Amino acid sequence: MKRPTMADIARRAGVTKAAVSFALNNRPGVSEPTRRRILAIAEELGWQPNSAARALSDGKAGAFGLVIDRPARTLGIEPFFMQLISGIQGELIRDATPLVLTMAEDQAAEIALYRSWWAQRRVDGVFLVDLQADDARVPVLEELGMPAVVIGAPVGTGRLPAVWSDDAAAVRTVLEHLAGLGHRRIARVGGPRRLRHTVIRTAAFEAFARELRVTSRIMEADYSGEQGAAATRALLADPEPPTAIVYDNDVMAVSGLTAAQALGLRVPADVSVVAWDDSALCELVHPSLTALSRDIAAYGARAARRLREAAGGLGLGDVQDTAPTLTVRGSVGAPRTVQ
Amino acid sequence: MKRPTMADIARRAGVTKAAVSFALNNRPGVSEPTRRRILAIAEELGWQPNSAARALSDGKAGAFGLVIDRPARTLGIEPFFMQLISGIQGELIRDATPLVLTMAEDQAAEIALYRSWWAQRRVDGVFLVDLQADDARVPVLEELGMPAVVIGAPVGTGRLPAVWSDDAAAVRTVLEHLAGLGHRRIARVGGPRRLRHTVIRTAAFEAFARELRVTSRIMEADYSGEQGAAATRALLADPEPPTAIVYDNDVMAVSGLTAAQALGLRVPADVSVVAWDDSALCELVHPSLTALSRDIAAYGARAARRLREAAGGLGLGDVQDTAPTLTVRGSVGAPRTVQ
Repeated sequence: MKRPTMADIARRAGVTKAAVSFALNNRPGVSEPTRRRILAIAEELGWQPNSAARALSDGKAGAFGLVIDRPARTLGIEPFFMQLISGIQGELIRDATPLVLTMAEDQAAEIALYRSWWAQRRVDGVFLVDLQADDARVPVLEELGMPAVVIGAPVGTGRLPAVWSDDAAAVRTVLEHLAGLGHRRIARVGGPRRLRHTVIRTAAFEAFARELRVTSRIMEADYSGEQGAAATRALLADPEPPTAIVYDNDVMAVSGLTAAQALGLRVPADVSVVAWDDSALCELVHPSLTALSRDIAAYGARAARRLREAAGGLGLGDVQDTAPTLTVRGSVGAPRTVQ
Repeated sequence: MKRPTMADIARRAGVTKAAVSFALNNRPGVSEPTRRRILAIAEELGWQPNSAARALSDGKAGAFGLVIDRPARTLGIEPFFMQLISGIQGELIRDATPLVLTMAEDQAAEIALYRSWWAQRRVDGVFLVDLQADDARVPVLEELGMPAVVIGAPVGTGRLPAVWSDDAAAVRTVLEHLAGLGHRRIARVGGPRRLRHTVIRTAAFEAFARELRVTSRIMEADYSGEQGAAATRALLADPEPPTAIVYDNDVMAVSGLTAAQALGLRVPADVSVVAWDDSALCELVHPSLTALSRDIAAYGARAARRLREAAGGLGLGDVQDTAPTLTVRGSVGAPRTVQ
């Protein structure tokens, strides 16, 4: 079955295409009985306004975009993005706005996509994730005048509105919990240094560790299980190993737990494990992982509402989401030295 | 900066909009020097054809769609879909075709989306996943004449082309490997019965188990870690428990391994564990999981090529992808009875 057109409706109703256009666009030019007859036939045929025609008339694409430039292998295993996407979707579906999702090789490819999408009116705005120090995307989007919402801290985001949660407060929550149990040597396996939220977490970790008189050590990794396990083995090989390790994602925390257990260590008796961004993954393992929890889908929905407002031309400030809270499970306990 | 329009180019070049249109569409009506000047200005301004205008003129949306109707919580943790999406993307990016991704509550919502997308020319075709017995989407897509490619076995798929891999052959590979090691009681924790590939795997499992004179038992679960663990505990509580368990996804296999270990059982000495659809998840745990491996991204890319061909009006048959192979890791061994 071909998509029904105005011509099909005109033929069936025995009127001109102009009459159909008047009726469907609710403009004068046809009698009331004819308008009703045309609308009934349009409904019967399943006619809907062509999105291309509508885009030409109102200048809107009627879609938003999200470009992710992480390697697919890492991406596939980390629940964060699917949760975020499902939250964005759940909000956009309210007015039937599709999300155009693409993966890019790197930031240069991502920027080329933005230029092309905007010039071609493919999307009315984009979600920006994984902000970097001196992020090259921010000035390009500002120059294009393309509506965008940053999902992440409002630092170096120029005039773009950010939807963010307070990572420094979350770091404090974890360190206070561990220090309160008696931990004095706490390590962190962080994400890539080039990401802005890694930098924020690192600064907070070092500052609060000093404040709590705790010895801290930080290793950089790429969010993969391989690097999470390798960093864990390196930390535990130290003559004075940490008694607790905090991981920047759930995947590295699971592999760190496994690596510690494979070395014959008991979790949490010998070493405690904390994951950032709780997910079902944290409950797959034994002991299940203590983790920083937040409603990632709600975070995505909030960003989607902000982008809809930004695309509607509203001048906007940043939106702070609730800070993550600590979900305590079996992987954290007091260190043996104080047991 | 506003998107450059033909009017902007006309103003800058000091010509009419009609002249710009002639020049950009490579039609007669302007002199050669004027055409060259207009093209130079268009390039300088970063002008690109408006996707809406192009869609109106050639009737193409220039995008493909994918609707997934699994719960976000399960979806987020299973690497399969992100791998599949990244493979589809990797192929579509070659001609800059965006993928429109949406999650739907159920099949009825999914079908409503197809009708609306097709009527509005939002997409030129869709990928169909998670085929069910008597799938209601197939006749709707056939009736609409909407190009579609089924990602899954060509059973009950009507005239829609399918891209599939041989699940029955994969089941045989696993059972022959386990029976060869001496296993005589083999269980399977399968996915939901309403999914067509679950039915195919179940039939193959029962047939090959009979052929190999192995006692088989099958439990149904929903792909979540919770149900995978519960099914595992139920199987292992049997007076004659299985010595090997095969899981229909990696998430359930990881939680099954953890559940067995929490019961004090050793893997693989007391029970062997096999996962279907290998992923990085299988290597996060200890022992790492023996799994059925295939290149899911390549599978997605193959489906994308097929959909591009289908949308181009080619009449097409099904495409069989390579069957999964068994990647042997630490979670499988001989049962104690024959050690």
